[in-house]
Amino acid sequence: MAKTIQFWFEFASTYSYLSAMRIEAAAQAKGVSVEWHPFLLGPIFAAQGWQTSPFNLYPAKGRYMWRDMERLCAARGLPLVRPDPFPQNSLSAARLSLAIEGQNGRAAFVRAVYSAEFGMGRDISDQNVLMDCLETAGLPTDTLGRVQDPDIKAALFAQSNRAKDLDLFGAPSFLVDDELYWGDDRLDEALEHAASI
Amino acid sequence: MAKTIQFWFEFASTYSYLSAMRIEAAAQAKGVSVEWHPFLLGPIFAAQGWQTSPFNLYPAKGRYMWRDMERLCAARGLPLVRPDPFPQNSLSAARLSLAIEGQNGRAAFVRAVYSAEFGMGRDISDQNVLMDCLETAGLPTDTLGRVQDPDIKAALFAQSNRAKDLDLFGAPSFLVDDELYWGDDRLDEALEHAASI
Repeated sequence: MAKTIQFWFEFASTYSYLSAMRIEAAAQAKGVSVEWHPFLLGPIFAAQGWQTSPFNLYPAKGRYMWRDMERLCAARGLPLVRPDPFPQNSLSAARLSLAIEGQNGRAAFVRAVYSAEFGMGRDISDQNVLMDCLETAGLPTDTLGRVQDPDIKAALFAQSNRAKDLDLFGAPSFLVDDELYWGDDRLDEALEHAASI
Repeated sequence: MAKTIQFWFEFASTYSYLSAMRIEAAAQAKGVSVEWHPFLLGPIFAAQGWQTSPFNLYPAKGRYMWRDMERLCAARGLPLVRPDPFPQNSLSAARLSLAIEGQNGRAAFVRAVYSAEFGMGRDISDQNVLMDCLETAGLPTDTLGRVQDPDIKAALFAQSNRAKDLDLFGAPSFLVDDELYWGDDRLDEALEHAASI
């Protein structure tokens, strides 16, 4: 069986941006393949009484997160522009990424969305932005029509339920066998574990 | 001026245990000296509506934290035994650590308390346990009387207010100049920054 890591990401999540931009190269270096799993944190947060991002609910934590992101992005040579509003509405982007079945195409689209959102501060609920992201990823722009496809809606709903069953509580999360790793800070340990199987 | 890192810890915090056990050696290797700053997270959590640890309030996060701690402790050769109850009442331990003015003695006591709590699962609100910790640290056991000293109570109160003014929202936290770093995962970056000044 191939060595695999499941990468669970939420498009509104800042730290998922960090992982999305480096996971493919880091996994390849260890002979591990990546499964890209979009999901929505909103329902998971809502179930614990949060109506928005914890970085908005808890201002000190939010101020820290943005400074931490500034330092990490600077160290990695990644641009960082805060999107407004934060968090972004990630529903359309999540649906679209599920509509792209090939993992390479999906990965390219996911990176394009994160770059637009946190590298350029663009609004990823805007159809024009999503269209640009499809183009950047070399995908047919008529994929955009799938945003309202009932099968895709159902697939994202199932995906978010699966996230809940997996006991996910934040993003990015990585799953290797039954081991869960949370946060970009744990990506290297997760890949180490995947490579050792 | 000497290169310095401020280490802000809460005795009830699991990840503070990880940092307490390695910060002295890691700092020394970089020519950085450590200031040991006990504080209470309780008032900070209470101000945001939390009456206990977020690891108890959010069960999925709690389950993950304990598994993460198991993995990290195993990798670092540290014992891990869950204290009951969790979180422990850390008030007496925090006061006592403030009563020890020398940084070396304080550090030895802090490590002894964390070892008792998370290495052995002992109750750190128990006076006998604290007495053992003073002995382990090579400190006079009559220090225990300082737990009720009004000056020490006031000092801990001031310390916790200072933590709030510094915008701390969790533990461990590290302060280097005006840069805040949160979590054992950021200790190395914080030391790197301290060494570069």
